[in-house]
Amino acid sequence: MYADSDGTEDGGEGSILPADESLRENGGGRPTLPVDGTLRKGEGRIRHYRWDVKYEYKSPDCFKKLVITINGRSPGPTIQAEEGDTVVVEVNNSLVTENLAIHWHGIRQIGSPWFDGTEGVTQCPVLPGDTFKYQFVVDQAGTYLYHAHYGMQREAGLYGLIRVSPRQPEPFAYDYDRSIILDDWFHKSTYEQAAGLSSIPFQWVGEPQSLLINGKGRFNCSLSSPVTGICNATNPECAPYSQTVVPGKTYRLRIGSLTTLSALSFQIQGHKMRVVEADGHYVEPFEVENLFIYSGETYSVLVKADQDPKRNYWITSNVVSRNRTTPPGLAIFNYYPNHPMRSPPTPPPTPPAWDDVKPRLAQSLAIKARQGFIQKPPTTSDRVIVLLNTQNTINGYRKWSVNNVSFSLPQTPYLVALKDNLKDAFDQTPPPEGYDSVNYDIFSVQNNTNATSSNGIYRLEFNSTVDVILQNANTMNKNNSETHPWHLHGHDFWVLGYGNGKFDKDKDPKKYNLENPILKNTVPVHPYGWTALRFKANNPGVWLFHCHIDSHFYMGMGVVFEEGIHRLAEKLPSSIMGCGETKTFRP
Amino acid sequence: MYADSDGTEDGGEGSILPADESLRENGGGRPTLPVDGTLRKGEGRIRHYRWDVKYEYKSPDCFKKLVITINGRSPGPTIQAEEGDTVVVEVNNSLVTENLAIHWHGIRQIGSPWFDGTEGVTQCPVLPGDTFKYQFVVDQAGTYLYHAHYGMQREAGLYGLIRVSPRQPEPFAYDYDRSIILDDWFHKSTYEQAAGLSSIPFQWVGEPQSLLINGKGRFNCSLSSPVTGICNATNPECAPYSQTVVPGKTYRLRIGSLTTLSALSFQIQGHKMRVVEADGHYVEPFEVENLFIYSGETYSVLVKADQDPKRNYWITSNVVSRNRTTPPGLAIFNYYPNHPMRSPPTPPPTPPAWDDVKPRLAQSLAIKARQGFIQKPPTTSDRVIVLLNTQNTINGYRKWSVNNVSFSLPQTPYLVALKDNLKDAFDQTPPPEGYDSVNYDIFSVQNNTNATSSNGIYRLEFNSTVDVILQNANTMNKNNSETHPWHLHGHDFWVLGYGNGKFDKDKDPKKYNLENPILKNTVPVHPYGWTALRFKANNPGVWLFHCHIDSHFYMGMGVVFEEGIHRLAEKLPSSIMGCGETKTFRP
Repeated sequence: MYADSDGTEDGGEGSILPADESLRENGGGRPTLPVDGTLRKGEGRIRHYRWDVKYEYKSPDCFKKLVITINGRSPGPTIQAEEGDTVVVEVNNSLVTENLAIHWHGIRQIGSPWFDGTEGVTQCPVLPGDTFKYQFVVDQAGTYLYHAHYGMQREAGLYGLIRVSPRQPEPFAYDYDRSIILDDWFHKSTYEQAAGLSSIPFQWVGEPQSLLINGKGRFNCSLSSPVTGICNATNPECAPYSQTVVPGKTYRLRIGSLTTLSALSFQIQGHKMRVVEADGHYVEPFEVENLFIYSGETYSVLVKADQDPKRNYWITSNVVSRNRTTPPGLAIFNYYPNHPMRSPPTPPPTPPAWDDVKPRLAQSLAIKARQGFIQKPPTTSDRVIVLLNTQNTINGYRKWSVNNVSFSLPQTPYLVALKDNLKDAFDQTPPPEGYDSVNYDIFSVQNNTNATSSNGIYRLEFNSTVDVILQNANTMNKNNSETHPWHLHGHDFWVLGYGNGKFDKDKDPKKYNLENPILKNTVPVHPYGWTALRFKANNPGVWLFHCHIDSHFYMGMGVVFEEGIHRLAEKLPSSIMGCGETKTFRP
Repeated sequence: MYADSDGTEDGGEGSILPADESLRENGGGRPTLPVDGTLRKGEGRIRHYRWDVKYEYKSPDCFKKLVITINGRSPGPTIQAEEGDTVVVEVNNSLVTENLAIHWHGIRQIGSPWFDGTEGVTQCPVLPGDTFKYQFVVDQAGTYLYHAHYGMQREAGLYGLIRVSPRQPEPFAYDYDRSIILDDWFHKSTYEQAAGLSSIPFQWVGEPQSLLINGKGRFNCSLSSPVTGICNATNPECAPYSQTVVPGKTYRLRIGSLTTLSALSFQIQGHKMRVVEADGHYVEPFEVENLFIYSGETYSVLVKADQDPKRNYWITSNVVSRNRTTPPGLAIFNYYPNHPMRSPPTPPPTPPAWDDVKPRLAQSLAIKARQGFIQKPPTTSDRVIVLLNTQNTINGYRKWSVNNVSFSLPQTPYLVALKDNLKDAFDQTPPPEGYDSVNYDIFSVQNNTNATSSNGIYRLEFNSTVDVILQNANTMNKNNSETHPWHLHGHDFWVLGYGNGKFDKDKDPKKYNLENPILKNTVPVHPYGWTALRFKANNPGVWLFHCHIDSHFYMGMGVVFEEGIHRLAEKLPSSIMGCGETKTFRP
């Protein structure tokens, strides 16, 4: 029953003919309900999903490898719900010897911090053979994501989209509502990648082999061994995704990126995109030729099928911010009734220069809250935490650090340790509030000999207003500073500003946008730049804040915030326990 | 400190010059003690090991792949102890997202059934980041093994040898005591193999890419892609193992097989081997040109360096019982002072025909307990359980079964479920005592449409004598019956007899060897044949009995025996819990 409801949804999205579209929606964008949607006592419905997670051979880019699937699919089924609904996902772990945890990215988990799905922070991992029941309210309309949050498991393919439709009409109109998930794809297993990152000398996995659009990409099979026979360019599994459009109609594309490493530029040949939503919040609309999107971000754009209808057009994704060696991700923007697999007659558009930060910074600055939907931030903050992003060497291992502290997860999840006052479960010394901003040169390779590893956390006063300044810097390589998309769990934050160079604590706050800052849950800090955020510590729980690049977080690029832990009246669910100090059985 | 003691031991074994041998032993074969061997209150010492288990890139057969290592090594360090000692192994799981469990193969775990290391039977798996402390008495001298016992993890390289020296002089003399571990090696990961076995249609991994002798083999790199660059024939990691011998001296070779799939024939060119020990018990000595050895078995053989000392000789392992496509495993029997890497001047000896069962059956029949060391079996048994070995299809999946029941592990370990009377933790219906031996044709493909999956177990009366008849049969392929090495946990059993064809419950028991049967813990059932075993159900606990071929057990080829569970007075250690119904936390 559950599989059917999922199948219907994505089957509709991927179908060739508009007549076949089960997802036809009114302007409000309310999706078809799962067949088992039952009314809840309060107001929202319960959306019940049952997922079986396992390894299967798939060829998303024509190269056959093991992929983690949900009910046989990667990307997994789209979760569809309405604002205020309760989503219940029962996840069965069929991974044989590997545990899992699934994070509901962008869902704030108000009142359910134990179901954030962050291994080591809010729960123990789910053992093979076990079924874990996630249950949470989707309190905000918008486009969100879900993905594995355990080791580097996400990049094995365990990810998908969450679409929450609003109860109120939306401030823009469209005819059809479609989803696009972007990813980069590596042929090495997560085990191989993790082993390399944990090696002395450090072994970097390199650039992705391909870029996926809705789970489909194209690897050049001639680069693969003919002996092994695991690359097959004619495998229908790697036929490009084709988005059929009816001439004259307007499409809302909900675009999410769950790349492992890459910042992307997304483009539809010959078509302008009007940005209307970011991370679940309405954006004061603006038009782009190409959309820059960072791992963990979602956008909705409106696209009108107003070009020559006698041909198809390329949909492309391209790596930016790293010197790209990966070919573009290609899908087809298919004007009905052309054949959906007919190649566009002109080559894909030229992507922006990978190393030109300016247009990326410009887009970041262009994103403001939509008039009529502005939630104003507090005008002042109670605490400012500056987070210097650096690469380091600790005991011979390559690490990423924040204020020269490389983050490591404890054995006992923070949520349980804090609630039950298990003081030996993690380092009680909080990490630094900042760095030596006077003497530190962010533009050159620094020694950072004082770098350490720790699982200490920031404890925030409940309901206080906190500013976080992300300060980028040079890596351990000359003339190199990377883009880091930082994602905060349990919160949206206001994006108050971006800048180049070193943040000036006296001057820069005066330029903050306090009028119409966008609320987001993921934001980039650009090379050699800074980004300023503000949020209210008003969601009792323990929340990870980290770089959304898998390998960067694995190497220590994250921090943890606690707030209002003692306001959690309820007993923690026993399902989140079973590891570290919570591994105790009294029959 | 611990690493040093391990390092010294195996360093000695692998060294080139006899003068360098730290393991020089007297005739009694007592190995060097670990540096931290401290006297226990009773009599034995405590042998303390600390192991860190993780994935690392290794090239055991020149092909680079991820291997599970212990303290950086695969095979892992040899455990050395004396009869009556207590072995303590603290295992830290650094596998990132994968759990583990380690079984001490051949150690009966008398009084410590919870430390048998069998996931799902005696313990929950050990989570990443956790340290599990195994502690057990090695009550019998002899040669034993250890290996992962979780999913198909063993074949990733987590295995090693246990050598327990006796307190009494041994009934044979030798100058040096050496270890040889045999393995077969696959380039696919355990994940890939398991995914194939669990697929519809069934995807079989095929024959191994190479055979390893002491962790070293040789894959033909020309079969690998030059693009990937992961095969390097000149990598010193895959230089063949060389066993240096001094002309005229006698060597005890302790040979253990931990193959994933293959039955092997082991041979030392130009030298006879005198079999003196099997699975920890002294054998009435007999000589062989080649030793057949099945996964899970150990043998000690005596070899005298009595051939032309001006040259080296091949040590070989070859697949038997399956139509081999894998090249022989090759090591060097190096006569000092020839260079240890000098190739022998003549080609390796021709292996026995893979499909000739006769010599294998003959060796099985030749193995008897040594005069003066015979432990006589009870002359009658209280119960006879016949176990028909078949291949089946259940719900479209390929399975192995016993009496048409394919075994599956429960979420809650049997040991805890039985001790705490958790009746819903597994199927309370016991599996059948036998099969329809009158009507079943073991020589042809059978429909077996009544095959089912179950986690039911056999409950044995404490101290009763149990006979088990392993009955082989045709697989799902015409004219095919495979060799299955069956391993019993918690016990040695007497091997009462072997035969061809269908076991005759009236006639065959009259031919049982009740005079001097060998005690073993692992025994083959030959193609289309039967093997009869007897054991006393006198070790309180829950014990797995299963085919030691990884994929066969994974596909259901096993049963579980319980005996005297209520005699376990002690509270079960909480360290074995944390999964299934034992996942409960009361702070």
